[in-house]
Amino acid sequence: MEPDPRPPLFTHRMRIRYAECDQQGVVFNAHYLAFYDVAMVELWRARLGGYAAMVAAGADYMIAETHLHYVAGARFDEQLEIDVRVGRIGTSSLVLEPTFRVGDRVCVHGAVRHVFVVPGGRSRPIPDDVRALVEPHAPPAA
Amino acid sequence: MEPDPRPPLFTHRMRIRYAECDQQGVVFNAHYLAFYDVAMVELWRARLGGYAAMVAAGADYMIAETHLHYVAGARFDEQLEIDVRVGRIGTSSLVLEPTFRVGDRVCVHGAVRHVFVVPGGRSRPIPDDVRALVEPHAPPAA
Amino acid sequence: MEPDPRPPLFTHRMRIRYAECDQQGVVFNAHYLAFYDVAMVELWRARLGGYAAMVAAGADYMIAETHLHYVAGARFDEQLEIDVRVGRIGTSSLVLEPTFRVGDRVCVHGAVRHVFVVPGGRSRPIPDDVRALVEPHAPPAA
Amino acid sequence: MEPDPRPPLFTHRMRIRYAECDQQGVVFNAHYLAFYDVAMVELWRARLGGYAAMVAAGADYMIAETHLHYVAGARFDEQLEIDVRVGRIGTSSLVLEPTFRVGDRVCVHGAVRHVFVVPGGRSRPIPDDVRALVEPHAPPAA
Repeated sequence: MEPDPRPPLFTHRMRIRYAECDQQGVVFNAHYLAFYDVAMVELWRARLGGYAAMVAAGADYMIAETHLHYVAGARFDEQLEIDVRVGRIGTSSLVLEPTFRVGDRVCVHGAVRHVFVVPGGRSRPIPDDVRALVEPHAPPAA
Repeated sequence: MEPDPRPPLFTHRMRIRYAECDQQGVVFNAHYLAFYDVAMVELWRARLGGYAAMVAAGADYMIAETHLHYVAGARFDEQLEIDVRVGRIGTSSLVLEPTFRVGDRVCVHGAVRHVFVVPGGRSRPIPDDVRALVEPHAPPAA
Repeated sequence: MEPDPRPPLFTHRMRIRYAECDQQGVVFNAHYLAFYDVAMVELWRARLGGYAAMVAAGADYMIAETHLHYVAGARFDEQLEIDVRVGRIGTSSLVLEPTFRVGDRVCVHGAVRHVFVVPGGRSRPIPDDVRALVEPHAPPAA
Repeated sequence: MEPDPRPPLFTHRMRIRYAECDQQGVVFNAHYLAFYDVAMVELWRARLGGYAAMVAAGADYMIAETHLHYVAGARFDEQLEIDVRVGRIGTSSLVLEPTFRVGDRVCVHGAVRHVFVVPGGRSRPIPDDVRALVEPHAPPAA
């Protein structure tokens, strides 16, 4: 994998738990999606006033698609850093591109497509503050 | 541990998943409580008309206390059998005693105290059908 | 999603556990990858002599890529059926395409790319028995 | 529960993840044991040179018994604090008493019995540095 040269929009650091590693000594593949969820909560807290505030203001998101490439295993007690970059921005959908790494070692990278919805309901446009945050970080048009 | 000579009220069989084993090759200790929850759902289905029916009829239970002894590790792909025996029966509380074993090898045994409640609310007596099921299996008075 | 008209190579049925559902009442997205792992173990047991036998014979696989589309939520106590179809077959890599459904309701579908390796080591060709099983189920050439 | 008046030996703070909460909106009971494991790793790092160093020096521990009382639910995104106090100290066994709380609200409290072993082998005395750490915090003799 070519490292993505763009600086990340956000980086979350977390430590790998013992129970997250399987008998081969590496993080079981499903857990990276749970880690991504943690990183999103922290992105919202740090840059968008918190996830609960967005829901209270009438917007939520669903995960519509996840696509991960597994390159190397992260291990117990390692510090995992999750870089989040911005992918394609649509009307109600937003692709974010996480890279999970331990120092310079990329473990997993991929893309997650979110669709914004009215809480419990149908799709709606990306909230203005979210759009204002991500648009300057969108990839250059092809 | 002396094997409990009483026949179990119920036995649930399940297979250990790869992701439930840690890097020592055995089931991580927390998962036995999740396995117990699965066994309860199956006990309710097999003998009490199902968990959802009990809630619809105005009763639910909370887990108030768990006490587990870890004797031996269960491993990936082994068939785990969860025997459930009856412990102390109170007015609104019921102790059940699970033994988790692979064949004759006891892995974990213990006791779980449930308190019956009005769904979302305060404690209430054990429902009649639950009491009728467990009383004949109660341990002999000391 | 257009339903895939090909009959699946294999179907595994499992019941959704309470602890796998989040506070929106549906299975948390990461768990589908854990369910897929369970289905693979059962596919190997049913059709290929078991996963342990393959490892003993000098072959293992790594998950290299996962791609899931989330269409609808599966709920507590529902019977989930995981249909596995065959995608692109390479020299050492094999794509399988799981569909997770409850009856006719498709919840999640996607693709998982496996790379066969010498246990603990480098990539190797797909074992003969695996190839013999999947080739008749490969998608028609484009 | 009477709050334990002794100051804790150690406190670990962590944030509740979305995927750890069930459809009643509270942490599923099994996860507290996983949280305890995280707190132990951090206790070892902060006060005993790290878990890996202990293993390298010829000592490990097994969880032999867990006993938890569930008092109130912790919720998504709350800051959980895990206070660890010292219980009975034996030759090779050590009881620690965790209290899981959100601010002043006690959620879960209990006791965990560890048995020290030669890595992969039989029981051995508590390592000297562990004993030196915990003995001054032992409960007063009855």
